[in-house]
Amino acid sequence: MDFEIKTRCRDTGARTGRLKTAHGTIQTPIFMPVGTLGTVKSLSPEDLKSCGAQIILGNTYHLYLRPGCDVIDLFAGLHGFIHWDRPILTDSGGFQVFSLAKLSKISEEGYSFQSHIDGSKHLLSPEKSVAVQFCLNSDIIMCLDQCIRYPSERNKTRKAMELTSRWAKRCKNAWTEGREGATSDGQQKPNALFGIVQGGMFNDLRTESVESLTGIGFDGYAIGGLSVGEPKALMMEVAAHTLPLLPEDRPRYVMGVGTPEDLVDLVELGADMFDCVMPTRNARNGQLFTDSGTLNIANARYRDDTGPIQEGCACYTCRHYSRAYLRHLYKARELLVYRLHTLHNIHYYLDLMDRMRRAVAENRFDAFKREFYALRG
Amino acid sequence: MDFEIKTRCRDTGARTGRLKTAHGTIQTPIFMPVGTLGTVKSLSPEDLKSCGAQIILGNTYHLYLRPGCDVIDLFAGLHGFIHWDRPILTDSGGFQVFSLAKLSKISEEGYSFQSHIDGSKHLLSPEKSVAVQFCLNSDIIMCLDQCIRYPSERNKTRKAMELTSRWAKRCKNAWTEGREGATSDGQQKPNALFGIVQGGMFNDLRTESVESLTGIGFDGYAIGGLSVGEPKALMMEVAAHTLPLLPEDRPRYVMGVGTPEDLVDLVELGADMFDCVMPTRNARNGQLFTDSGTLNIANARYRDDTGPIQEGCACYTCRHYSRAYLRHLYKARELLVYRLHTLHNIHYYLDLMDRMRRAVAENRFDAFKREFYALRG
Repeated sequence: MDFEIKTRCRDTGARTGRLKTAHGTIQTPIFMPVGTLGTVKSLSPEDLKSCGAQIILGNTYHLYLRPGCDVIDLFAGLHGFIHWDRPILTDSGGFQVFSLAKLSKISEEGYSFQSHIDGSKHLLSPEKSVAVQFCLNSDIIMCLDQCIRYPSERNKTRKAMELTSRWAKRCKNAWTEGREGATSDGQQKPNALFGIVQGGMFNDLRTESVESLTGIGFDGYAIGGLSVGEPKALMMEVAAHTLPLLPEDRPRYVMGVGTPEDLVDLVELGADMFDCVMPTRNARNGQLFTDSGTLNIANARYRDDTGPIQEGCACYTCRHYSRAYLRHLYKARELLVYRLHTLHNIHYYLDLMDRMRRAVAENRFDAFKREFYALRG
Repeated sequence: MDFEIKTRCRDTGARTGRLKTAHGTIQTPIFMPVGTLGTVKSLSPEDLKSCGAQIILGNTYHLYLRPGCDVIDLFAGLHGFIHWDRPILTDSGGFQVFSLAKLSKISEEGYSFQSHIDGSKHLLSPEKSVAVQFCLNSDIIMCLDQCIRYPSERNKTRKAMELTSRWAKRCKNAWTEGREGATSDGQQKPNALFGIVQGGMFNDLRTESVESLTGIGFDGYAIGGLSVGEPKALMMEVAAHTLPLLPEDRPRYVMGVGTPEDLVDLVELGADMFDCVMPTRNARNGQLFTDSGTLNIANARYRDDTGPIQEGCACYTCRHYSRAYLRHLYKARELLVYRLHTLHNIHYYLDLMDRMRRAVAENRFDAFKREFYALRG
């Protein structure tokens, strides 16, 4: 994996970079819209591009169960199946087995679980997770990890972290073997592999996790197990401890995070990649992001509001529609509104990342952050 | 209203024409996608244009209740509110009061009803219907008519037809008065007014209805009360009787119809305009139109079908997506699929109209129709 740091902020840990994949180059720091089932809910690929999306996420668990690898194989991977020609990162499936599947049991071998759709029985091992992600032809493959609840006690957290490290080694082996499979032009398969740091809210366990993962060696490193219900201060403390431990020359991905404020605070600490369902899910619930905070479109005050969601916003929705129209559609549960809201929220997140990249490049991240928070009052 | 017949088919009643409105010129015969609440369900205006939509429908009853005329007034009409700059036709609200409202009572004055949303009480008179449609700034305003169930006995049908004629006269008066209101450039308001022929399945009542409406004089004439549950042969018999009675030099609109087959059969008889929820509603139910008939995307046979809905179709969906992907999205109830399906079905309907216009212009409608039915087997 080809990752290059372009600029570093003088006074913070923030940095910009360039991450090359077989499906194009990603400018970091970047937010990745979540496309669970092979679609970022309500948006087309063209919509995503109009928002500036550089890379999207797919979910291994969901796509493995439905439509299944045999179907996606007919399209030589997820890109062809879903009509998306830019990079894709897939998670390992571990988090979904943990949160969605029935009768999930964990062992050294992997997760035994029953499908939440039809109850069919499956084993998700590190090797299986990597194999499925190769079938999806994901540009960035994630290692299978063991997720735990918050709060979890130290001993349980240590065990999960250690199992995650042993699985990471097995993922690396499976990936090394799998990528030797010839591509159409006889080259090594280009799919990168990222390790996932665990260790819950215990900084010393996070340190141990980083040490064992860097010992194995990955193309990039993710921090898992954050934003799972812990207070924001605690999340930031663990992130502030862990991010600097990660190799400087590799992309750092904070998984499942977060609010616009979280993104700003974590970019400041040197994070490069994020994903979260918040912009898409909130859009469907009528919660719209603006520089002065979140707006609830159902509010009666917007009934006769002829202005856009956010004045000056360049998204398709703000260029053409009023809050009054969006509220009208939302109250009537019209399908179009989910797309219009999602377009705005995704645009808001991606534009925020773009503003941060520019602030870092121009060495004014501090000023950017002060202004960002000042507008929120 | 400026309507011009361009070509007539030698051997059938089919014809092509050009209908000018303040928001652009419509090529007839034309199908009008239904945008009940100020949105053709799941599609953006750009989507509609990509399908070739020339004009869409809005519903007076729905928009009057929600968001209300005071809101739409802030946008100087429906076009600005919904971001659609091409022509709009609005129905009168009569059919929705008849089919949706609670405690609807009909009198000489109009419909007294309670909103299906909040139970509030309203009177929809001919004058009110026209006033609301002026507020929507609809390019084509429809007269308020009395709708009846199928089957209805002769006496009841006659009474409804006669009331419709008396209301049509009141609509004409209200419209004549209303359009004198100065527009921004001091001109007469450009909104056209169409009368609606009633008379159920009784040909002599249809004749009487046409006579009284043409006596009043309208910019165009619609046939209401068809496709309400009667057998197809009966609908065609009434249409075949009524269409030739309508003034040759005015557009003829068959309301609420129909299947692709209905459109072909009615164009042959000289109909110029249609609207129907079938392409949009069926899309949401996974029923997709093709030249060989309707396809149910949920069918297991499409699980691994890498082909488009219809080979050679130029719609966005067929250019980029497989039946396998659409089935996957549909089974998972993903929001994107409603848009992709609707894009195809609306494109199918509008392309069918385009093919018919070309067949008429080239004097080969008979051959077109034979081929159309041959493909359906």
